[in-house]
Amino acid sequence: MSECLKDAPIGVFDSGFGGLTVVREIMRQIPNEKIVYFGDTARVPYGSKSKETVTRFSRQITHFLQTQNVKTIVVACNTASAYALDELEKEIDIPMIGVVKPGAKVAAETTRNGKVGVIATSATIGSEIYTTYIKDLKPEISVTGKACPLFVPLVEEGLLEDPVTDEIASRYLLELIDIDIDTLILGCTHYPLIRNTIGRVMGDKVTLVNPAYETARELKCLLEEKNLLQDKKPDLGENRYQFYVSDGAEKFKTFANSILKYGILSAKTINIEEY
Amino acid sequence: MSECLKDAPIGVFDSGFGGLTVVREIMRQIPNEKIVYFGDTARVPYGSKSKETVTRFSRQITHFLQTQNVKTIVVACNTASAYALDELEKEIDIPMIGVVKPGAKVAAETTRNGKVGVIATSATIGSEIYTTYIKDLKPEISVTGKACPLFVPLVEEGLLEDPVTDEIASRYLLELIDIDIDTLILGCTHYPLIRNTIGRVMGDKVTLVNPAYETARELKCLLEEKNLLQDKKPDLGENRYQFYVSDGAEKFKTFANSILKYGILSAKTINIEEY
Repeated sequence: MSECLKDAPIGVFDSGFGGLTVVREIMRQIPNEKIVYFGDTARVPYGSKSKETVTRFSRQITHFLQTQNVKTIVVACNTASAYALDELEKEIDIPMIGVVKPGAKVAAETTRNGKVGVIATSATIGSEIYTTYIKDLKPEISVTGKACPLFVPLVEEGLLEDPVTDEIASRYLLELIDIDIDTLILGCTHYPLIRNTIGRVMGDKVTLVNPAYETARELKCLLEEKNLLQDKKPDLGENRYQFYVSDGAEKFKTFANSILKYGILSAKTINIEEY
Repeated sequence: MSECLKDAPIGVFDSGFGGLTVVREIMRQIPNEKIVYFGDTARVPYGSKSKETVTRFSRQITHFLQTQNVKTIVVACNTASAYALDELEKEIDIPMIGVVKPGAKVAAETTRNGKVGVIATSATIGSEIYTTYIKDLKPEISVTGKACPLFVPLVEEGLLEDPVTDEIASRYLLELIDIDIDTLILGCTHYPLIRNTIGRVMGDKVTLVNPAYETARELKCLLEEKNLLQDKKPDLGENRYQFYVSDGAEKFKTFANSILKYGILSAKTINIEEY
């Protein structure tokens, strides 16, 4: 039974494309695992929406992933981790992991001057979840959040290296520079894609924390702890990585192939409202 | 019966806030009418999504508006007008009107040099619906479309008068200036809110067509023709204008009150997936 569970896939979901930065890290760090990914491209973005709505959407996705017999679920979306994870964890009997806690933990370990910044969607910042987790670990750390609503559309428009992105980043990050943070959490899965711009604006003395990387690391520990880590090299069959979306499978496939090392053979569209 | 029908409200829907620019025009031009508005704020935006998904969402909203006993439905969203209107018109027995046809008609009447530009979401431009309608009226007109995906996020971030919006507008509009259009359709309901920027970039010789204005005018003609125009001044009761959204009613109310002349007393959240 345990062998059989080890062989089950990891479920990963996001509001759209962003969670693929987490998938990329999982593929790198635990390459023997199978993955079933769901991107809610019909209802993306989540970052401007309410807790109630994000939780309802996340619950439907969790139900869908359970039909795929996953052994664990990774909430690869900061907004869904902030709003829905606590509630959904109580409802299902497989382990779940979000991107917020691993990112918060590393930031708390990294800061030397006790000043941490977080950039994310309006929803994630409004939830104050990074502040809560960091203060649980080290109450003396001061945490300052800043919502950056234009970063996702700029990334999706492909302006990764562009004077407009520089200008918007300078405006958003000004108050974090002013208060002299030494650690900045990239609290939205799209942001690692403009890491260079953010790093340039913040300067060399600020460490950027990428929760995607930390989440894959924690996921590995979690699977080891529960004796669920796949130790056999899998067959390189077509169904090793499976991708589902709620809209625009072809567009998703193109984007995914541009950021993942492994070629995606297919992505399927499902009606998530039915779950 | 006809008197009773005259008294019924007009249903108006959009993917979110943008359709309020159409509501504003309806309130101005036919002030005796009652309105029921629905904004799909849980699944906004539509402009990057597929025809199939936008049609499914629009069908649910049409069903909801029918439960409100509306006498007509205004599709106050360019993307939904482009993708869903033709199909939904066949399914229901009350008249429907979109924003595309009225805008196309005025553009065809306005151009002197036979060169019309359209700016809109990727979906609306991809559908080529403005081109189709304009060429139906005057085949000799050349129509050039340009998708402007960053305009909506810039408007929603409040950068209505800003060097960044100027810069993005200059990039998007360059090819339309180069080909010497004399008429430009603002093919997304958010764009009238940055009309000044767009006008400045295009210059005085280019006429901007706002489909919101034209749609309200056509709606009035349609209601007169069907003997459905309300001729009595309504009671100024609370239920004259009713607003429904699929998420974030408070945020919607604040935004609506900033652009409408009449104070909105309340907006209600409903689960649109149930319709």
